[in-house]
Amino acid sequence: MTQLDERPVAATDPATDPTSDPAQTWLDSLQAAFAARDVGAATAHFATTCFWRDLVAFSWNITTVEDRPGVVELLSATLDRVDPTDLRLSEPSSSEDGVRTAWFEFATAVGRGRGLVRLVVDDATGREVAWTFLTTLFELSGREEPRGTRRPMGAEHGANRERVTWAERRAAEEAALGTETQPYVLVIGGGQGGIALGARLRQLGVPSLVIDKHARPGDQWRNRYKSLCLHDPVWYDHLPYLKFPDNWPVFAPKDKVGDWLEFYTRVMEVPYWSSTVATSASFDEAAGEWRVEIEREGRPLVLRPTHLVLATGMSGKPNVPVIPGQDVFAGEQHHSSQHPGPDAYAGKRVVVIGSNNSAFDICGALWETGADVTMVQRSSTHIVKSDSLMEIGLGDLYSERALAAGMSTEKADLVFASLPYRIMHEFQIPLYERMRERDADFYARLEAAGFDLDWGDDGSGLFMKYLRRGSGYYIDVGAAELVADGEVKLARGQVDHLTEDAVVLADGTTLPADLVVYATGYGSMNGWAADLISQEVADRVGKVWGLGSDTTKDPGPWEGEQRNMWKPTQQPNLWFHGGNLHQSRHYSLYLALQLTARHAGMATPVFGLQEVHHLR
Amino acid sequence: MTQLDERPVAATDPATDPTSDPAQTWLDSLQAAFAARDVGAATAHFATTCFWRDLVAFSWNITTVEDRPGVVELLSATLDRVDPTDLRLSEPSSSEDGVRTAWFEFATAVGRGRGLVRLVVDDATGREVAWTFLTTLFELSGREEPRGTRRPMGAEHGANRERVTWAERRAAEEAALGTETQPYVLVIGGGQGGIALGARLRQLGVPSLVIDKHARPGDQWRNRYKSLCLHDPVWYDHLPYLKFPDNWPVFAPKDKVGDWLEFYTRVMEVPYWSSTVATSASFDEAAGEWRVEIEREGRPLVLRPTHLVLATGMSGKPNVPVIPGQDVFAGEQHHSSQHPGPDAYAGKRVVVIGSNNSAFDICGALWETGADVTMVQRSSTHIVKSDSLMEIGLGDLYSERALAAGMSTEKADLVFASLPYRIMHEFQIPLYERMRERDADFYARLEAAGFDLDWGDDGSGLFMKYLRRGSGYYIDVGAAELVADGEVKLARGQVDHLTEDAVVLADGTTLPADLVVYATGYGSMNGWAADLISQEVADRVGKVWGLGSDTTKDPGPWEGEQRNMWKPTQQPNLWFHGGNLHQSRHYSLYLALQLTARHAGMATPVFGLQEVHHLR
Repeated sequence: MTQLDERPVAATDPATDPTSDPAQTWLDSLQAAFAARDVGAATAHFATTCFWRDLVAFSWNITTVEDRPGVVELLSATLDRVDPTDLRLSEPSSSEDGVRTAWFEFATAVGRGRGLVRLVVDDATGREVAWTFLTTLFELSGREEPRGTRRPMGAEHGANRERVTWAERRAAEEAALGTETQPYVLVIGGGQGGIALGARLRQLGVPSLVIDKHARPGDQWRNRYKSLCLHDPVWYDHLPYLKFPDNWPVFAPKDKVGDWLEFYTRVMEVPYWSSTVATSASFDEAAGEWRVEIEREGRPLVLRPTHLVLATGMSGKPNVPVIPGQDVFAGEQHHSSQHPGPDAYAGKRVVVIGSNNSAFDICGALWETGADVTMVQRSSTHIVKSDSLMEIGLGDLYSERALAAGMSTEKADLVFASLPYRIMHEFQIPLYERMRERDADFYARLEAAGFDLDWGDDGSGLFMKYLRRGSGYYIDVGAAELVADGEVKLARGQVDHLTEDAVVLADGTTLPADLVVYATGYGSMNGWAADLISQEVADRVGKVWGLGSDTTKDPGPWEGEQRNMWKPTQQPNLWFHGGNLHQSRHYSLYLALQLTARHAGMATPVFGLQEVHHLR
Repeated sequence: MTQLDERPVAATDPATDPTSDPAQTWLDSLQAAFAARDVGAATAHFATTCFWRDLVAFSWNITTVEDRPGVVELLSATLDRVDPTDLRLSEPSSSEDGVRTAWFEFATAVGRGRGLVRLVVDDATGREVAWTFLTTLFELSGREEPRGTRRPMGAEHGANRERVTWAERRAAEEAALGTETQPYVLVIGGGQGGIALGARLRQLGVPSLVIDKHARPGDQWRNRYKSLCLHDPVWYDHLPYLKFPDNWPVFAPKDKVGDWLEFYTRVMEVPYWSSTVATSASFDEAAGEWRVEIEREGRPLVLRPTHLVLATGMSGKPNVPVIPGQDVFAGEQHHSSQHPGPDAYAGKRVVVIGSNNSAFDICGALWETGADVTMVQRSSTHIVKSDSLMEIGLGDLYSERALAAGMSTEKADLVFASLPYRIMHEFQIPLYERMRERDADFYARLEAAGFDLDWGDDGSGLFMKYLRRGSGYYIDVGAAELVADGEVKLARGQVDHLTEDAVVLADGTTLPADLVVYATGYGSMNGWAADLISQEVADRVGKVWGLGSDTTKDPGPWEGEQRNMWKPTQQPNLWFHGGNLHQSRHYSLYLALQLTARHAGMATPVFGLQEVHHLR
């Protein structure tokens, strides 16, 4: 059983004749229009209301165009250069509820891609046209990954007095890196995002280096509070190339995740420096490279990478609120990101300001240790139970059930990627309605305890909140029950000030406290750029994350894609990478291909480079 | 993509109606005879000349019975107890050259199994009967492995003031092991064999411990000569549960194998003590347990395991020949297993006595370092080129080509296991004839250089030599060319004596030497038992490895299976495990199931416990 599931596989079953499949007919016709460079004819293959999402294959960008004018714009700018050919089904198409779904593959002037199209019947013509169209680049010609039939031989057979062994070559490479040789790509941050990208770049032959402040890969997880487990289930969490074995827990404990990341880094031969911090960076426009000052185990060094990837966490820099009285408060106070875990706080009075994931996790762990805990809810929160989310929200794509139905992780990633952000909430709303119904009793108890619940501005639930604002929710693994039961006390309102020994809310409620935890979230990732590079560069890049959905904390205008993630930014040679394990796995491919193309000296004209509408 | 390939999968494709498959008809008929406990009727389903190989499912042994009398004997002893039911195809059968091949699954009174049958037409009756019949136990009822849909949850949801985290539980378990708690199984030797068995026992919930003398898992490989790579290709080498990723080299370098073994041990949570040696062991018959004295990082400790597994290497103890003059030889002399690698011997005169794998590997590495090397060939050797062996010998079962054709590693293991040892050479001979033809020029050059080649007593080549005697061959990765070219000098004949500075052969040839390497092979694995336990127990167990083929170094009578490997021995609660990565992977399952059944207190009456015909 290979793990080459990302690679397109042509339909080879002679029992299914692809030439008789209506989707192949559609592809053939589109191909003819492409070959004729006839933008109008090609566009006629799309519905009036349509979404073409392209991951690097056409646009050298991550972009979605909408409706026929959008298709015209994309094709006019790219068709000649991309030269798409050989569009063919990779398996027979299937139809449900008037929508024909088809997996296909294709070639471009520089590589090979994979796509997914949903066809609907055009009422006017009676012909099938594309409603959603996903095109993704899979590999670059001449830079195919050494996997499967292309895997390296390993042993060098024959006698050779100049033999250099694998271990010797690795040692020499490590000794030279950063002094005699420079990484083409420097990835700052070695959590799952940096490691996954590092693994892909290694595979693609791009000289790279991942640096991280912790002592060992995986410490990003190990160092967190002791009861932490992944909130997403295993099927959603695989890294590229090497899947978790099938005895892996559904929700892996943090130390086990840490061990996996450490060994993955080693097995995938990711160049990785632990105990290393970047202290400043500036882009040398003349040289077209960065000057990055780092400290490796305390020793300063200057690196000269061509590209800089910030993978320091999509949560960005901690938001620590400024509250009158913080200077007189005699107890301990820290941001949730600095919270050392509950062990020191048994019997103490703790006020946790905030009511999202971190707040709940910290409250739960503190309660377990025997602290007297109060949560301060300042605004409404969306809560879903972990098992409901797993079964209803992810089960069709990421589960044993999905695997048994042939839905590999990589296929699921593309199905997910094929749903346009513009209409994704429409697919999400019914799922959350089901969850609300399933767990109605739970929600009633929470509300009875005074908790202010929401389901997102439009009822679309957790995933849209994650994509739009990256906050505002809690995946309940138990702590919400503590609030419902009153075991964790709940206070609602804004914080007015701190006294020497208490938190005082706007309504005068006084909450005695030995410890105040600010579970108040994080700013945009371009805050990292402000700290490391300059405010000017941070402002040039603008806000990172969010869709421009014009919902709470995600101001418009509509962007079509997540701002600045895994794609070119307004700052040349600066990239942002991050997100959960799913995103780290899937989008690292497209970021790695963009970097590889540049390393190979290919032309990479970017279609639709995003404009900046918000600074943070 | 799950890795549950070992698990039987029922045919669920409605396009194939299993009830119309002749193989299902045969299974149904056999099932009826089983249900009626009619040994005669069941036996009538077998050809006059037939081979039933059972891996634990019927026999609580690894055994092959031959022809109808053998079937009668096996069924008479086991049918009532095993109660085989639910025999059904797991995929449609296929026919080629008059042989119908069918995969099936079945249930027994205590578990579930998987099988492979080859049916041929009985000339007398015109009905299909079994020519080869493989039955294997896959899992024990109530001891199903927590994989796939049975995987653990990991996170313990809900608030719990008594929460013990994964890391805490692991730490407590490690602290108690060997003092407060005893391993039910102690595995001595933590190479690929011990690790694979340890992983399976861990999965099966059998308290176990693997001990190894080296400082880290994987050092068994790391500490060998620097140019060593696996001689078998990657597809043949996977460990259970977690396959090498598809970027893994075809022939992995030893240090990369070492890293993988270390990673695997940790990820699979195998209880493993490094820097630990067993100094003596004795079986306490009254208590039904072993008393094993060990030293862990120099500190003595007594363990009380119920079962003892020797996984110290199928090559057994080094054979160091006794040669007159060894006491007067002024240079260095050591067995190949003690050879530190070539680095210290540049410019030195080295005589390597022996002409098998170790001899060639050592000669090649010494030549590369610039030593003056002479190989002494004492008897004929079988040589195949690594790439020919990979393509012709293994390619149908273990290759990218095999994977693309649906031949998973686990399926390949069962195909291989289904070929009866008695006739395996008949399948092997044509493969080696092809290799001989393909590399005719190479062999001609070797013979012209005076090298004495053979192809096994019956021309059946390398794999049969491996199974019969575990020696007598070299998989050429380059060093044979050095002999053919005269770069490594060749001498033929027996060693008569050593002088102060030379090796003298029986014909008077004098070979000046600064170093003599005895690449003279290994004794039987029961030599480990003699050292660790007693000569009495070693003699009771008898020779380990070999088939009783009555060929060179594998004296008869015919045993039908490899002596003492992975199955009960004449010494209660003593087991032998080992072999290459393939065998470590595949047979560890059956050994683990036998141990698990005993741990669970199941009755495990052994059919056909082998007799001892040879002491070493």
